Amino acid sequence: MKHWFRIQEIGTVHRPLDPGGEEGKYFDPGVEATIKIAERWADGLDGIEDFSHIVVIFYLDRMPRRRTAGSWRAAEGDSGARKVGFFSTRTPKRPNPIGLSCPRLIRRDRSNLIVRGLDAWHGTPVIDIKGYYPRDESRPDATVPDWLAELWQSHDRERGFPFKPY
Amino acid sequence: MKHWFRIQEIGTVHRPLDPGGEEGKYFDPGVEATIKIAERWADGLDGIEDFSHIVVIFYLDRMPRRRTAGSWRAAEGDSGARKVGFFSTRTPKRPNPIGLSCPRLIRRDRSNLIVRGLDAWHGTPVIDIKGYYPRDESRPDATVPDWLAELWQSHDRERGFPFKPY
Repeated sequence: MKHWFRIQEIGTVHRPLDPGGEEGKYFDPGVEATIKIAERWADGLDGIEDFSHIVVIFYLDRMPRRRTAGSWRAAEGDSGARKVGFFSTRTPKRPNPIGLSCPRLIRRDRSNLIVRGLDAWHGTPVIDIKGYYPRDESRPDATVPDWLAELWQSHDRERGFPFKPY
Repeated sequence: MKHWFRIQEIGTVHRPLDPGGEEGKYFDPGVEATIKIAERWADGLDGIEDFSHIVVIFYLDRMPRRRTAGSWRAAEGDSGARKVGFFSTRTPKRPNPIGLSCPRLIRRDRSNLIVRGLDAWHGTPVIDIKGYYPRDESRPDATVPDWLAELWQSHDRERGFPFKPY
């Protein structure tokens, strides 16, 4: 199994006011951002404005690719650190540095998509856009491991208010 | 904007009993399938078994890449065909032929993930696996265009029972 494929940038995340580019530096995905789709693909967006949310797949171009599974990421919950494999986490350091967000679509302005809830730095290459299809992406009875539920609870406490989906 | 990136196969969809490979030929994503992850990445799966669902990103290796936005896909709802851009649809013919599914994880067997609800043919290269994070993927108030709601209703009628998420 040694197959490699080529993917192209079809648009770019535009969020010039946010820091970004530095790992660990805070930025709020809840701030509005713009996805600028290349002009040649703009007609492909027709009808996207009738979705409340979209799926954005992007390439984490400033992350070094992960080379081995060996190093683990500790998931720190209330009950202490727990080590889990990188696939179980959202670490950007992956064999293919591909990110996924399901932001709310505020509006479409021709080839520009203005969104809230896009967890990607300014300048990030976008590789696919899909309308958010609840039948495909929504899993109402999904459950997560205890360490992740605890991690989220501690995030909520730090922020002082409960999480609200975008 | 002319950036291209390389992505690698990290595993393969195994579903030998389903036809697949022929567009339009029926196969049921609800049938169990196995994702065989390459041995070198297997440790990265540790902890994934504690998720009820996973996110699978795959490369549609038998689809010709879309070259122009020009050709539209008709979305056929009860109120007749409506033309929308390809980004609004789940057509596999995209600038980057990338697919996304959020199947239920039945069990993990070391480097094998047995799932239900994976909409990918036998042999499809997998490029990323993530645990399904409801905070990131679930959008309870998401709404879709009328043509899509009507399309789903007609699918339900053909099948004779309502859709149930995997």
